[in-house]
Amino acid sequence: MILFQSDYQEGADAKVLAALQATNALQSPGYGDDALTAKVKDQIRALCRAPEAGVHFFVGGTQANLTVIAAALRPFEGVISSDLGHINTHETGAVEATGHKVLALRHTQGRISAEQIRTAYDAHTGDVNHEHSVRPAMVYLSHPTELGTLYTRHELDAIHAVAKACGLKLFLDGARLAYGLAAEEEVDLPYLAGICDAFTIGGTKCGALFGETAVLKNAADWPHFRYHIKQRGALLAKGRLLAVQFQTLLADGYYIELGREANRKAQRLKQAFLGKGYQLLADTKTNQIFPVLPNGALETLQKTFAFAFWEAVDSAHTAVRICVGVTTPEENVLALHSALEAL
Amino acid sequence: MILFQSDYQEGADAKVLAALQATNALQSPGYGDDALTAKVKDQIRALCRAPEAGVHFFVGGTQANLTVIAAALRPFEGVISSDLGHINTHETGAVEATGHKVLALRHTQGRISAEQIRTAYDAHTGDVNHEHSVRPAMVYLSHPTELGTLYTRHELDAIHAVAKACGLKLFLDGARLAYGLAAEEEVDLPYLAGICDAFTIGGTKCGALFGETAVLKNAADWPHFRYHIKQRGALLAKGRLLAVQFQTLLADGYYIELGREANRKAQRLKQAFLGKGYQLLADTKTNQIFPVLPNGALETLQKTFAFAFWEAVDSAHTAVRICVGVTTPEENVLALHSALEAL
Amino acid sequence: MILFQSDYQEGADAKVLAALQATNALQSPGYGDDALTAKVKDQIRALCRAPEAGVHFFVGGTQANLTVIAAALRPFEGVISSDLGHINTHETGAVEATGHKVLALRHTQGRISAEQIRTAYDAHTGDVNHEHSVRPAMVYLSHPTELGTLYTRHELDAIHAVAKACGLKLFLDGARLAYGLAAEEEVDLPYLAGICDAFTIGGTKCGALFGETAVLKNAADWPHFRYHIKQRGALLAKGRLLAVQFQTLLADGYYIELGREANRKAQRLKQAFLGKGYQLLADTKTNQIFPVLPNGALETLQKTFAFAFWEAVDSAHTAVRICVGVTTPEENVLALHSALEAL
Amino acid sequence: MILFQSDYQEGADAKVLAALQATNALQSPGYGDDALTAKVKDQIRALCRAPEAGVHFFVGGTQANLTVIAAALRPFEGVISSDLGHINTHETGAVEATGHKVLALRHTQGRISAEQIRTAYDAHTGDVNHEHSVRPAMVYLSHPTELGTLYTRHELDAIHAVAKACGLKLFLDGARLAYGLAAEEEVDLPYLAGICDAFTIGGTKCGALFGETAVLKNAADWPHFRYHIKQRGALLAKGRLLAVQFQTLLADGYYIELGREANRKAQRLKQAFLGKGYQLLADTKTNQIFPVLPNGALETLQKTFAFAFWEAVDSAHTAVRICVGVTTPEENVLALHSALEAL
Repeated sequence: MILFQSDYQEGADAKVLAALQATNALQSPGYGDDALTAKVKDQIRALCRAPEAGVHFFVGGTQANLTVIAAALRPFEGVISSDLGHINTHETGAVEATGHKVLALRHTQGRISAEQIRTAYDAHTGDVNHEHSVRPAMVYLSHPTELGTLYTRHELDAIHAVAKACGLKLFLDGARLAYGLAAEEEVDLPYLAGICDAFTIGGTKCGALFGETAVLKNAADWPHFRYHIKQRGALLAKGRLLAVQFQTLLADGYYIELGREANRKAQRLKQAFLGKGYQLLADTKTNQIFPVLPNGALETLQKTFAFAFWEAVDSAHTAVRICVGVTTPEENVLALHSALEAL
Repeated sequence: MILFQSDYQEGADAKVLAALQATNALQSPGYGDDALTAKVKDQIRALCRAPEAGVHFFVGGTQANLTVIAAALRPFEGVISSDLGHINTHETGAVEATGHKVLALRHTQGRISAEQIRTAYDAHTGDVNHEHSVRPAMVYLSHPTELGTLYTRHELDAIHAVAKACGLKLFLDGARLAYGLAAEEEVDLPYLAGICDAFTIGGTKCGALFGETAVLKNAADWPHFRYHIKQRGALLAKGRLLAVQFQTLLADGYYIELGREANRKAQRLKQAFLGKGYQLLADTKTNQIFPVLPNGALETLQKTFAFAFWEAVDSAHTAVRICVGVTTPEENVLALHSALEAL
Repeated sequence: MILFQSDYQEGADAKVLAALQATNALQSPGYGDDALTAKVKDQIRALCRAPEAGVHFFVGGTQANLTVIAAALRPFEGVISSDLGHINTHETGAVEATGHKVLALRHTQGRISAEQIRTAYDAHTGDVNHEHSVRPAMVYLSHPTELGTLYTRHELDAIHAVAKACGLKLFLDGARLAYGLAAEEEVDLPYLAGICDAFTIGGTKCGALFGETAVLKNAADWPHFRYHIKQRGALLAKGRLLAVQFQTLLADGYYIELGREANRKAQRLKQAFLGKGYQLLADTKTNQIFPVLPNGALETLQKTFAFAFWEAVDSAHTAVRICVGVTTPEENVLALHSALEAL
Repeated sequence: MILFQSDYQEGADAKVLAALQATNALQSPGYGDDALTAKVKDQIRALCRAPEAGVHFFVGGTQANLTVIAAALRPFEGVISSDLGHINTHETGAVEATGHKVLALRHTQGRISAEQIRTAYDAHTGDVNHEHSVRPAMVYLSHPTELGTLYTRHELDAIHAVAKACGLKLFLDGARLAYGLAAEEEVDLPYLAGICDAFTIGGTKCGALFGETAVLKNAADWPHFRYHIKQRGALLAKGRLLAVQFQTLLADGYYIELGREANRKAQRLKQAFLGKGYQLLADTKTNQIFPVLPNGALETLQKTFAFAFWEAVDSAHTAVRICVGVTTPEENVLALHSALEAL
């Protein structure tokens, strides 16, 4: 069986693994208090052109999300998210477990708009009994979204402007950022560091063995952040392991290069699905594609390939998610391509 | 500088790293839903002679502790611990962050006794207003303790008996279990699986790149446990990575062998300190030693070696912690030994 | 200014206040551990024909809701509610502050249906990655709803059947139960005690100075419940005060009588609004009415009367909420009636 | 049976009850958004000579404590308390349920000292791994303490100085403040408002039917505080009820007068116990006394009088707590006095 369900079905990119191997014997203090980690944090600050930024590494995305969000909010505050947002759907209420409500807005192709955010904010502040409802204090965006779509720079500018006007922190979940950066060059790291109070640079889904980097715009605005990380069980003992991986991924444009290559493969598959006359649930430029398949065709393909079920579109058609990740072998893509043509 | 501060200053044992390398390209479903993970769980159940046990992998110890404890307790319940217990001192209130009080008892050489637990339990239940105080519902032990000491099988039997009589769950934190199993053969995995409702088999401090295994005595008593793991941000996307490491560590007695070797090195250092006429803060048989050094001697050694400060014993003496881990090179131990002799 | 914004604008019903006065000097143990409280709990069990029920008193509704819900759920579980449900809209995320997600379903006239609940439950359990999302474990209904509407016995039967089939606890918030019981005789206390795992009998909005009674179907299913109450800061020191009030309210059908009288007054006003040709946002039989007023008429009325703003229906019309409570003086109702006729 | 277990065994002081009666029909907006509440808040600010203070009413002490503490702390911060402190012993882990650790220090006669606080703070900040432990951020004192003792102005000055130097907020729980203010005139409301970031003025144990007032030194330092109150279920619907009671209690020195009278009665009993040659567990000047009784004498007294068991001092002696509250009838005190003499 060839797996296309997610972008974390294999291990790490070869270079990343080699770097872990090469540094294995290196002694270093625990918890990221080492010189290599410090150096990689500087590397990331430089890439983001954000010399004042706080940079912190996490093992996983849910961990990063819940820690950043809980650190940002006071007890009665909540975070605005698309109803399809990962924090609203696929983290088992991790944000609520820290005491905070996710304020979900209806998505359009995975995205929410500046107008929706403004309306939600105004509805709250305009309510004479506003202290009876959760105060919106942060906006959470996924980029790429859970539907593989992207915010345009124009859309992000508008959201940033509203967030700033309303005093809402802006947090962008970049679990699949490599694919986003590769597909839409206008949205790059310095831009994100400029508009976001916090954002993550995904590793697990983008070639690392594991790991996410959180960039906090202004370290001074996130005091004592390492306490938060430790309290949430997210401070890796051998913290250096995370630095080593991101050092490799982020050197010399490798991260974007990896993303571009995966996008290319995914888009090739997308064209093949379109060539068969199939619809797409969402039209994406990144590494996730969402073809709507006749159930018969799906059954045939599933003899060899595993996809993630997305939704039953009607009684005869099913939308699936197909991910092509950094570590997806080219031959797997070719095999699916051939199988499609042979349908 | 040669580091002896902790047992996680290097990467992984060579065999573990090789196993990660060897399986890197293997495709598998995420989150530990794969065949290899299932197989390793069976391997662990067999080692523990606990066919009904739930086995779950975590990236780190704080994560494992907070997830197991929060899963076991109802909101008004607390966990009894030594006041030196890791959950009481060095997890930034991670247990409290899940809503639960740690009920600390005064330790003796890192340990608490069955009698202390019984007294605390009786004090609660005997109080006519018991619902005004936190209900003890679990006992947390570290083995080895934070002072490197061990519970004897006799002590554990007594604690188990009290816990059972009082309806308290028993949870043993085995972050350094390799060293404990190697040093005290009467306490082995089947024994622990017999007396504990839950215990962990440490990886991070015992040769893994990262990872802890939680063994839940009776899976049926911990329903829906994976929801807890996911909610706490502790469900590793590439879950297989954890299984691969524990498969290697636990095969053919390797885990205990690694522990024995480190203990041997540590004990050799201990003898050297004793040979110099220094006291020990706690007398240990495991990989952690706690010599009390004259401040002058400490200063000299610290030019070359890094230790963990433990406490100022008096104005002229300081206790330090020295850890020799699975991955500590023999030459580092020899270097310290020589330096000691040269003092 | 004459106030119609809520049903808690005055103090207590005269009989309730007299009972507090009459028992003021009575000595009793704290926290409801007294004979009078025990007697009133028996009285309530008898009224509900639920001899096994747990009966507990709270000072307020948010307190009662958050305590009952947090006691019922395990950390990864959530509570299904109408999106208009009080816990979802007007308790400042009190349920989330205990760690639990409110799983909101779109309301129809304030109500949700058995079908919606079933669909939500099936969507969760049918998801292969169900442990990545919050597990529905309870259904929260308000009766009367926040829109003053009522569930029919037929609807409640269907919801009860689905809840039972899916293993969901059923919790009914009866903050305004007096008005509901009076308006719909088929839904009475024994019926509620039969279908609900927990429900509340409102005092604050129904003639008490303050207080809510929680009836827990089977006390044995809610072990150690008083610990929960105390932990949430909800165990009134002079617990007897709550028993005294409910003793008075619930004696000899007085509670329903009070509700009926308020409904009568409210319905009289409703007819007056309809008589003016105004629409209703929701058609209610209880003590809350929701007329849609031309803005000009609203402005005129607001010179003398205060209503709760509900929503701007269009640029020329506004829906308001008008409450007539147990303690609303008849002359206030007459004054509004006259003002309406004079418009 | 004559009850001396606590200071909340009867209802309210007669004047307080009369005020509730007199204002019962008054219409007012809910949640303390009314003119009377505003006026009483001004009255309290004036009494405290603290024009910038935030003043908020709560129904009960646990509620007030958990709300103030959770509002003050960030997730990784804890509150320093005497190990006998109410929040550490008799609130069922209410503070931990909001996510925060209580950092308990050994008490001396119910009190902790400035030195102890300084030492605890220094131990934390001096730890190189300080982010692995809970950060002390607030000091909680009870005055009078749980042992009926009082801090001197000198002691409070020292604690204030340390708290200020260390950036710790100072919170004083005045559940029995009437008795404290009456017994030690140097510590008055303006003084407390000057040194405390927050303190409470107790009602429930000092003549109110129920209620505590929280005074927040500088309202601007506690932004959005009403959200916290509502989220914790602590915003009383008929908020005016609390204002009415404190208006009465705090007018014209009545509060202190009530405290003085109760202290007088308690002290009279204390002298009677001393006259019998009995020891005191703690020597108090307030309304709580802690005689150590021979078990035989205790048995005899308990035929007529109920005391709170405090501790078994030895096999032949038991310490009990005897409370004389604002509402304790003089004849009860006389009866106990006579019984003592007749022993």
